[in-house]
Amino acid sequence: MSEVISKASAAKQAATVLNRLTAQEKNEGLLLMADALIAEQDRILKANEEDLARGRDNGTSPSLLDRLRLTPARLQDIADAVKMIVGLPDPVGDLLESIERPNGLKIEKRRVPIGVIGIIYEARPNVTVDAATLCLKSGNSVVLRGGSAALSSNRSIISVLREALSRSAIPADSLQLIEDSGRGSVDEMLKLNGLLDVIIPRGGASLIQNVVQNATVPVIETGAGVCHTYVENTADYAMAEAISLNAKAQRPSVCNSMETLLLQESFARAHLAKLSETFREAKVELKGCDIVRELVAWANPATEQDFATEYNDYILNVKVVKDLDEALSHIARFGTKHSECIVTEDAINAERFLQEIDAAAVYHNASTRFTDGFEFGFGAEIGISTQKLHARGPMGLPALTSTKYRVVGTGQIRS
Amino acid sequence: MSEVISKASAAKQAATVLNRLTAQEKNEGLLLMADALIAEQDRILKANEEDLARGRDNGTSPSLLDRLRLTPARLQDIADAVKMIVGLPDPVGDLLESIERPNGLKIEKRRVPIGVIGIIYEARPNVTVDAATLCLKSGNSVVLRGGSAALSSNRSIISVLREALSRSAIPADSLQLIEDSGRGSVDEMLKLNGLLDVIIPRGGASLIQNVVQNATVPVIETGAGVCHTYVENTADYAMAEAISLNAKAQRPSVCNSMETLLLQESFARAHLAKLSETFREAKVELKGCDIVRELVAWANPATEQDFATEYNDYILNVKVVKDLDEALSHIARFGTKHSECIVTEDAINAERFLQEIDAAAVYHNASTRFTDGFEFGFGAEIGISTQKLHARGPMGLPALTSTKYRVVGTGQIRS
Repeated sequence: MSEVISKASAAKQAATVLNRLTAQEKNEGLLLMADALIAEQDRILKANEEDLARGRDNGTSPSLLDRLRLTPARLQDIADAVKMIVGLPDPVGDLLESIERPNGLKIEKRRVPIGVIGIIYEARPNVTVDAATLCLKSGNSVVLRGGSAALSSNRSIISVLREALSRSAIPADSLQLIEDSGRGSVDEMLKLNGLLDVIIPRGGASLIQNVVQNATVPVIETGAGVCHTYVENTADYAMAEAISLNAKAQRPSVCNSMETLLLQESFARAHLAKLSETFREAKVELKGCDIVRELVAWANPATEQDFATEYNDYILNVKVVKDLDEALSHIARFGTKHSECIVTEDAINAERFLQEIDAAAVYHNASTRFTDGFEFGFGAEIGISTQKLHARGPMGLPALTSTKYRVVGTGQIRS
Repeated sequence: MSEVISKASAAKQAATVLNRLTAQEKNEGLLLMADALIAEQDRILKANEEDLARGRDNGTSPSLLDRLRLTPARLQDIADAVKMIVGLPDPVGDLLESIERPNGLKIEKRRVPIGVIGIIYEARPNVTVDAATLCLKSGNSVVLRGGSAALSSNRSIISVLREALSRSAIPADSLQLIEDSGRGSVDEMLKLNGLLDVIIPRGGASLIQNVVQNATVPVIETGAGVCHTYVENTADYAMAEAISLNAKAQRPSVCNSMETLLLQESFARAHLAKLSETFREAKVELKGCDIVRELVAWANPATEQDFATEYNDYILNVKVVKDLDEALSHIARFGTKHSECIVTEDAINAERFLQEIDAAAVYHNASTRFTDGFEFGFGAEIGISTQKLHARGPMGLPALTSTKYRVVGTGQIRS
């Protein structure tokens, strides 16, 4: 039996126990995990040092090494994040519908754990703890398959967490790490119908597309964001400047940052000279359509390909549009259904934008950077779904649950 | 451009219009569809006669021919079903969550159409109308790919329905029929990410498994039912007999009928002789474990394979179990997570069963035959989901929707 099958089978078995635990029993196990991360930090940091040394030998870039690095302070943050999840309400058991039928049948629809969740991700060891905690809190077993660059760290973390769980009601087998870092172990997980109930990929576009294209297990896609901000002539200039600068430059590397700014023509002619200076001060490179380049001498030309690109960087496309309809068409063509914003004082156009844009989150007069489980008040986030089924947008704990109909009768039969 | 791509593209374009229609505008279009099915029944029945003639020439079985056959009365039933769906509430726009954040952001989570739904199904022309109506009512375009045996009927029905829609606010292009009945058109649909948002297969196990195994488009699986009824020693005999007979024999061909009856030992020893006579009168063949065969001389032996089989027929496995734990293990091993029932007067065991069984619907003292959108009071059903994501169990109109977060601010930016 392969490592993947044997660990997924153990996780499935453990899920039947986990499914029955109370919120308190689960929280006690999670708190032991948080404490163990601190108590056993020397082991974890030593293992992390092995990954870092191997990374340096392999010529890994400083920014990737930084994402891989654990420190006592970072471990404390990770442990604190576990404790914060402990404080969130347990979605399992929530009553979603209650129906009493004319024949007397009482039907309840309640949240239940999904079962076994597979997570395929890249080299950030904090994801290991975060994903494990969210899955266990919502009553699910989890099979983690992290990147090879973090294998020593992940192995050490999972060993520490499983030891902690063995002193709790949560079965240690609820938490599994696939250590085979070959491509074959991912391929095997993608086809593991019957043992894995869902796979959530977390990482770059190529990792996600490999999962989406090849999995027969259901997938929750957390995808790319080519997000737009459309500013109308009626917009307040200061608000438009603040929102567009925030959406682009507050943290360009994330999926909810803006890639393209659409400006209605009079607004552009009145304000783009000034607005472009604001972006220049923030070290944002501009790529523009012809009118933009007429107004901003230093802007480079924007190609069709640019409009389709998620830069995740200090680069911004700017395009002048005639009206709302042209903005809607541009977004329908180039958007990735993630987060889209209109800045306007025109309530009718705002409502049309909110209604007609097909995206997980649509904004009127606020930065797209708010598309985030914490900013939405969920207290946690397993990712931002860009698909339309099951969960869309920031996913908190309820996104990690399924439902069950409980039907109680007194002998009813169907006629 | 292939037929599939060109029709799916037209459906996607139409979905942007459909998305904005009011419930009343959609209902007006659906009522025109219902009327047209009656007004144009001669055309439809003539086309149906072509399918029937071809079927007879090909040696199609009488029962399949009967499923294919349309009559004025059946068309009236189909039109009445459309009108019933018109009477159901429109789920689009429903407010699911309302959040006001400390920074003043107002966040609403509302139901929106999914977009374009692909339906792959077999040779029942009533499914053509039913699926089309449910998708349009919930604001979705639909691309139908029916079986070749019903192609003339489906082509005629879709032509009538599209003519009706052309007199309404619903774009006729919301409704598409793939006429290419080769396997290639199914394969093409399964990979049509970006044009189809979801595929719902409706039909036998091999059709569904082909879709699940090969689609890269998200799928809602409507699957097999190996359903159990477990009767404890404390059960009321008359209730246990009525429920188990109903679950097996009221309509054996459907997914929510029972395939295996589990009896606690004392109940079996006290009642199986009598109960088996009831099944014999209903022409149900019994297959049993050793104890069952000791108690019922005419029962055949039940193999492991039998316990895993969805008979959809007048055949029933009967097995004696020691207690609830053995019943739970058997169901965990052989069940398909569809519908499972316990008949007992023991409230504690009933609760354990409802809690621990992993299935779309779990029953205490009622027949599994109630797992059905109409019986649950949803007024419609696009299928019974046996997967855990998005929708589980009977799917009414809300299962055909996604959600969107609408965020309204006054200039908020993220710090």
